[in-house]
Amino acid sequence: MSKLWGGRFEKGTHHDVEVFTASIGVDARLWSADLRGSMAHARMLGEVGVLTSAEADQIVFGLKRVHARFESGKVELNPNAEDIHSEIEKALGEEIGPLAGKLHTGRSRNDQVATATRLYLREEIDGYAQDLKSLGAELIRIAEAHVETLMPGLTHTQHAQPVSLAHHLMAYFWMFSRDQERLGELRKRVNQLPLGSAALAGTSYPLDRQKVAKELGFDGVIPNSLDAVSDRDFVIEFLSQAALTMTHLSRLSEELILWSAPEFAFVELDDQVTTGSSIMPQKKNPDVAELIRGRAGKVSGALVAALMMMKGLPLSYNRDMQEDKEQLFIGLDTARTSVRLMKLMLESAKFNSARMAAAVRGDFSNATDLADHLVRKGLPFREAHEVVGRVVRGCLESKTAIEDLTLADLKKHSPLFDESVLQEVQPLSVMRARATEGGTGPAAVRAQIEKARRK
Amino acid sequence: MSKLWGGRFEKGTHHDVEVFTASIGVDARLWSADLRGSMAHARMLGEVGVLTSAEADQIVFGLKRVHARFESGKVELNPNAEDIHSEIEKALGEEIGPLAGKLHTGRSRNDQVATATRLYLREEIDGYAQDLKSLGAELIRIAEAHVETLMPGLTHTQHAQPVSLAHHLMAYFWMFSRDQERLGELRKRVNQLPLGSAALAGTSYPLDRQKVAKELGFDGVIPNSLDAVSDRDFVIEFLSQAALTMTHLSRLSEELILWSAPEFAFVELDDQVTTGSSIMPQKKNPDVAELIRGRAGKVSGALVAALMMMKGLPLSYNRDMQEDKEQLFIGLDTARTSVRLMKLMLESAKFNSARMAAAVRGDFSNATDLADHLVRKGLPFREAHEVVGRVVRGCLESKTAIEDLTLADLKKHSPLFDESVLQEVQPLSVMRARATEGGTGPAAVRAQIEKARRK
Amino acid sequence: MSKLWGGRFEKGTHHDVEVFTASIGVDARLWSADLRGSMAHARMLGEVGVLTSAEADQIVFGLKRVHARFESGKVELNPNAEDIHSEIEKALGEEIGPLAGKLHTGRSRNDQVATATRLYLREEIDGYAQDLKSLGAELIRIAEAHVETLMPGLTHTQHAQPVSLAHHLMAYFWMFSRDQERLGELRKRVNQLPLGSAALAGTSYPLDRQKVAKELGFDGVIPNSLDAVSDRDFVIEFLSQAALTMTHLSRLSEELILWSAPEFAFVELDDQVTTGSSIMPQKKNPDVAELIRGRAGKVSGALVAALMMMKGLPLSYNRDMQEDKEQLFIGLDTARTSVRLMKLMLESAKFNSARMAAAVRGDFSNATDLADHLVRKGLPFREAHEVVGRVVRGCLESKTAIEDLTLADLKKHSPLFDESVLQEVQPLSVMRARATEGGTGPAAVRAQIEKARRK
Amino acid sequence: MSKLWGGRFEKGTHHDVEVFTASIGVDARLWSADLRGSMAHARMLGEVGVLTSAEADQIVFGLKRVHARFESGKVELNPNAEDIHSEIEKALGEEIGPLAGKLHTGRSRNDQVATATRLYLREEIDGYAQDLKSLGAELIRIAEAHVETLMPGLTHTQHAQPVSLAHHLMAYFWMFSRDQERLGELRKRVNQLPLGSAALAGTSYPLDRQKVAKELGFDGVIPNSLDAVSDRDFVIEFLSQAALTMTHLSRLSEELILWSAPEFAFVELDDQVTTGSSIMPQKKNPDVAELIRGRAGKVSGALVAALMMMKGLPLSYNRDMQEDKEQLFIGLDTARTSVRLMKLMLESAKFNSARMAAAVRGDFSNATDLADHLVRKGLPFREAHEVVGRVVRGCLESKTAIEDLTLADLKKHSPLFDESVLQEVQPLSVMRARATEGGTGPAAVRAQIEKARRK
Repeated sequence: MSKLWGGRFEKGTHHDVEVFTASIGVDARLWSADLRGSMAHARMLGEVGVLTSAEADQIVFGLKRVHARFESGKVELNPNAEDIHSEIEKALGEEIGPLAGKLHTGRSRNDQVATATRLYLREEIDGYAQDLKSLGAELIRIAEAHVETLMPGLTHTQHAQPVSLAHHLMAYFWMFSRDQERLGELRKRVNQLPLGSAALAGTSYPLDRQKVAKELGFDGVIPNSLDAVSDRDFVIEFLSQAALTMTHLSRLSEELILWSAPEFAFVELDDQVTTGSSIMPQKKNPDVAELIRGRAGKVSGALVAALMMMKGLPLSYNRDMQEDKEQLFIGLDTARTSVRLMKLMLESAKFNSARMAAAVRGDFSNATDLADHLVRKGLPFREAHEVVGRVVRGCLESKTAIEDLTLADLKKHSPLFDESVLQEVQPLSVMRARATEGGTGPAAVRAQIEKARRK
Repeated sequence: MSKLWGGRFEKGTHHDVEVFTASIGVDARLWSADLRGSMAHARMLGEVGVLTSAEADQIVFGLKRVHARFESGKVELNPNAEDIHSEIEKALGEEIGPLAGKLHTGRSRNDQVATATRLYLREEIDGYAQDLKSLGAELIRIAEAHVETLMPGLTHTQHAQPVSLAHHLMAYFWMFSRDQERLGELRKRVNQLPLGSAALAGTSYPLDRQKVAKELGFDGVIPNSLDAVSDRDFVIEFLSQAALTMTHLSRLSEELILWSAPEFAFVELDDQVTTGSSIMPQKKNPDVAELIRGRAGKVSGALVAALMMMKGLPLSYNRDMQEDKEQLFIGLDTARTSVRLMKLMLESAKFNSARMAAAVRGDFSNATDLADHLVRKGLPFREAHEVVGRVVRGCLESKTAIEDLTLADLKKHSPLFDESVLQEVQPLSVMRARATEGGTGPAAVRAQIEKARRK
Repeated sequence: MSKLWGGRFEKGTHHDVEVFTASIGVDARLWSADLRGSMAHARMLGEVGVLTSAEADQIVFGLKRVHARFESGKVELNPNAEDIHSEIEKALGEEIGPLAGKLHTGRSRNDQVATATRLYLREEIDGYAQDLKSLGAELIRIAEAHVETLMPGLTHTQHAQPVSLAHHLMAYFWMFSRDQERLGELRKRVNQLPLGSAALAGTSYPLDRQKVAKELGFDGVIPNSLDAVSDRDFVIEFLSQAALTMTHLSRLSEELILWSAPEFAFVELDDQVTTGSSIMPQKKNPDVAELIRGRAGKVSGALVAALMMMKGLPLSYNRDMQEDKEQLFIGLDTARTSVRLMKLMLESAKFNSARMAAAVRGDFSNATDLADHLVRKGLPFREAHEVVGRVVRGCLESKTAIEDLTLADLKKHSPLFDESVLQEVQPLSVMRARATEGGTGPAAVRAQIEKARRK
Repeated sequence: MSKLWGGRFEKGTHHDVEVFTASIGVDARLWSADLRGSMAHARMLGEVGVLTSAEADQIVFGLKRVHARFESGKVELNPNAEDIHSEIEKALGEEIGPLAGKLHTGRSRNDQVATATRLYLREEIDGYAQDLKSLGAELIRIAEAHVETLMPGLTHTQHAQPVSLAHHLMAYFWMFSRDQERLGELRKRVNQLPLGSAALAGTSYPLDRQKVAKELGFDGVIPNSLDAVSDRDFVIEFLSQAALTMTHLSRLSEELILWSAPEFAFVELDDQVTTGSSIMPQKKNPDVAELIRGRAGKVSGALVAALMMMKGLPLSYNRDMQEDKEQLFIGLDTARTSVRLMKLMLESAKFNSARMAAAVRGDFSNATDLADHLVRKGLPFREAHEVVGRVVRGCLESKTAIEDLTLADLKKHSPLFDESVLQEVQPLSVMRARATEGGTGPAAVRAQIEKARRK
């Protein structure tokens, strides 16, 4: 009987149960975090005298050798093993013999696994924040080149008012910026040390948890051992964050998909990030954008799985919680690769400024400015709105653009119009006029980009 | 350039995009379904004259050889391959040369993949229905032995009225029976042939879809090609079903977990299906039940992922839909293994009848019968309810059980009580008295089991 | 103390608890179903002799008077009442005095509420199926007028092959047809009688559940009393169905939104179903389609709520389950109104055939047919695909449409092209050629519509 | 035609569409936030000279009168009105005539609604944080009284090691403390001003957004107008937080439900927060705890609804987003009332210390300490674990508790045991020994409570 806990059992575990309960397929990636956690634990045991210095040194030595074996790819994991932690313990035994068993002093798998997961996640979060930052930088780069590039600004997928491509893309910058902000905040809650909580109640060995926390770079120790082994808030909070990032990406993907459709043709995605069809030789499909959009569901699904897993569980650790890592890694991998692939798509995308500008002409998105002209002449907004409603209806009937009307045309609808209106309704003027803080006017957008740069 | 669709592309696909879009890790299991679908397609092409008989025969021959290679485990899949379908096409090319290319006549990957997925799922559904049937049979087996085994029947996790263990377990039988019913119904919708729809619009080759449907055992052909390539209802419907099964299992798991806690001790799970602790030698943990309970979240999460993936997608096929299989297989694997492991747990579980019977004593779950006694003596139910409320309060104060009260004790609360009540409030009598159809009375339960057997 | 269950309690319920636990705001709509359930119960009690005929008659008489009061809108419900069932019991007391109390004989609120909910839902399902049928009929009506109306058929939101508007809309017909099918199947599981199961274990009164089932039109009685009071499968199954309908509607809504954008302009939605802007006079927004699309999330959310609510609950009834109705009614109301509003939108929508046909010109969606031409001349499909890829690239460079190329142009790419190809690549020919069962060819679509009609 | 946007429309809105799109039933509660937002907007318009001082003053005066009317409950809202904002505008018109129309200058409903929602939510968050703080204080209060109250500490719902009730409850303190932390962080992101973004692009009026932000207490202005009107991150982030709180509460509820079951009887909930049964006079049901547990699903469902609503929406505002408030308020109301009711339950709960202490006796939760005794004598932990496994098995067979064994009994299993072990395995000693930081030892728990107090 090779299990660590066989003592009171008369029969071994059923094979199907071993397969059903194994997590090695999921948690193998924790190997380095687990080993580093163990090294810190061993050193601390030596320092507080639970182990002799010699014992501690030898265990750390063994752990380093195991780490090197993993690093060089020389470890073949048994696919039926219980989890990565038992595989590592076995490997340590091969290196240093029975002394390996002493590593487990004052520690349980409950706090050990939680420690490795948090350590791993903390490092991934840092990489993920970097991914988001690169994507943000790419958005700024494109925006800077397009502060005066006109495009239709939409509400309800209908043309509303002209905006610049810079302004449009910067909206996404701020979404990803909030994502980074949230990541920074939740990182603090991830980066708390569970080790030293043992199975659930702490331990009678005189452990120094602060020392371990310091060595591993944790911001603090979790102040309650029951909470330490049964808290999965950090998984759920991370998944909530990842689901938000994916929602943002799904919106940008939707736009790239629409814009690369022939009806829009605002952008051409590069050959490198699109695919063709096995049957239709003309096709150039925005598969990456589609997959990102679809995978937004995947991460929201993982979030639901984690929330539902935790619902109604009594304290402290329950085996249900083992499922946390599978969902966590789905969220982590999906969000990180999606962010990186979005950047790859944007880097090589060719925006068609002429086509975007053409789309604004004759789209009535200057109607508000026509009304504002009348308001400045003293007409109450509501009446101005009605006058312009009639102008629009007239244009629709005669298939004319507002910006192509003569002053005489306009005066038929209201005598208040004067010469200046003809310039005011030109799309570029319309866009430039929105000069308030946060508006699409070029100066405001430049200030916005500057603010973004400083972030 | 090795892609099937390279013609209009100047640059190859970026490596990161290949990794991001690859599905071989998920869809490899479709190999047999894909090959059989292809054989049927090739035969039909031969029969309608799109291919010559010789061509069709040779393609089928090649496909059989590829099938044999897979069966014998001799195929090493390229982990970076696009999907299983392109790997199979490559393998077919190795067997029969350029003729392999003709298999694709009148077919697109869109209808090909949908066909393989439905074929695979149909066969899995049949296995899953069998799993559910076995679990149901196990529940009946235990129930038959426990028609007179008393246990507390709970509402609000409080003792309500005594029931038999048989009656309790049979409640689960009916849940799983409904699951089977639903599976049978959705199977019809799964088992519809998409092949012949080509990319989205049908094809100009004179395909005979009915012939292919018949050969592959489909119940019919999908009547609209756009729907055929973009419908994922069958995935969502299956996941809804699997989520319900998991919900049922989570409830039974919760009960097994509670019943094996020392406070209840109604059941002892076998060593083979429980695990110990690396640190606490006394532990015997119901891990399997916990994992089943936790994985209920996983399947609901997969359902959410699939629903959200499909939300708002225009017709017809979009690459987002590629993600359907990952969620489908999560649902399928989790539900099937959970059903089987539940059966394994129940088979070897030892129910502690004495302990269950003891739990009923003094739990006031005969209070309703005390009230009913008064009602039969003519007291309105509401007044009877109040009288019994006072009896209960009295018992709580004097720490007595209702079934241990004397007639004199009872008459202090109401003169209507007579001798017969002393027998009526004995737990076994209480249980036996619920003789209505569907009630916990032994005869009713036996009739219920008989009805279940016939299902 | 006015509660029905006050006997053993020394203190009354805290006001905040009353508010927190009250469900009258949600369940008031069950009034008629509850009253009819009670009538059937009372009649049966009379027939089996638990009540005298006179008692039963008087109770039924009182219930009818209460029903009439509700019908005439004369009942003012106390917003702080526990639930509709206690309000009705109070009203019955006002009509017939203390005899009202006998109605509760052999019945508990657990089976009473479940009965009323199932009865109500069954009737709503019938209305909902009718809504779906009307929507399907509207789709057929439009399809019949557009069997030869060309439009771009999309995959990946890119033009793939031309289809007819009829074919496109019929894809939705089949989705809603499957929804009706599923409704019909789950209706059987909804339509099972819980009454007679009492609190959880059945009752010692000699109830005749079959009689009640027959009177109320139930298809059968639930065979296990524990299951009867704690089953919420029918709620979850209904919500799964409603979530699917909403998913279908969200896809059609997305298309209507895109098609009414100026870039597409395939459809103009009627003034009656669109809204304007308070600030932009030119706007005409597809709000109804947007709300339907957004509410797809609402119903999936309700499904998650219901699944999570049931996860891990031990038998039998738990108060958690009270929340079922709120989610059920969200799903019911949202799905029914969305289906009806979709029909309203379609009825008055003006499809712009000229614009759709124009969109197909020069979109290369005849490229497959160009390749098929070469295949018929003996070129392997893969080579043909590559030739056509080059033709497409040439057209892109010279801004020509395939259908505008001369035979000489084509022969530069392959000598195999002959005269007939010039006709074959005309969009209408391309669409007509897809004549296989389920394809977009007019004859196939007419057969499809005929099949749909027969449904 | 009474709509604000009728100009270009020939027909009025269909009645069913008005009902379908109306949000007054949901957003009426925003009245005060909307009015205060409008006052700040009007004042600023006066200060920057877009309105005259007199106009601005009169509008503010009118808004104050409307506010007073709402406050005094004198406003009857039209249930068919579009939303609260149009009702308020109508009321303002009644107060000050056509001038009311000028309030809309430089503002759109898009930024107006977002502003009111954020203002409202910010204030609710502050109340909610206070609710959480009160609950935390209640947990501390109970904990302080139970630092030495023994109870079984569970893993896998099996007795693991004894803990104190104080330690157990403090685990929840830290969960709710994290909830408060998260609320504080997301509050900053909620508290950003959208006003001044107009419909989507900013406005040509020289608005001073900083002034408005300052007056309304916002932390800053949203730097991008497109983002300002289409961001719903703050709703999703809030719902994620609320879902986590509900998950925590569902766990505590589960424990209260189990602990008030007769098998545990660790706690008695007060009459004021429990309910009885209409049929079973003995029942005392933990309904509040059950409803809280069940409503965890409701909030997770609202989160899913919000995530799915936003998935794939192009910029900027789309009507789908109107649904945000319904979900937001579900999350807000459910979380706040649940937190408050949990406090109410705990306040009056009677913990049964004797029963909890008794549950620890003979439960083998001192087995780890028996093993640790041997480890201190030099036995490797793994061997010690096996020895103790055999001791446990022996006790199970002879139905003895470890703490009742004699030294002689123990020495049969290992000669290493000495006298001191007899004291060490007494449950209270076991609990006290876990003195590490964060452990269940009394001193450690007191330090933990002190730390909590300082939060």
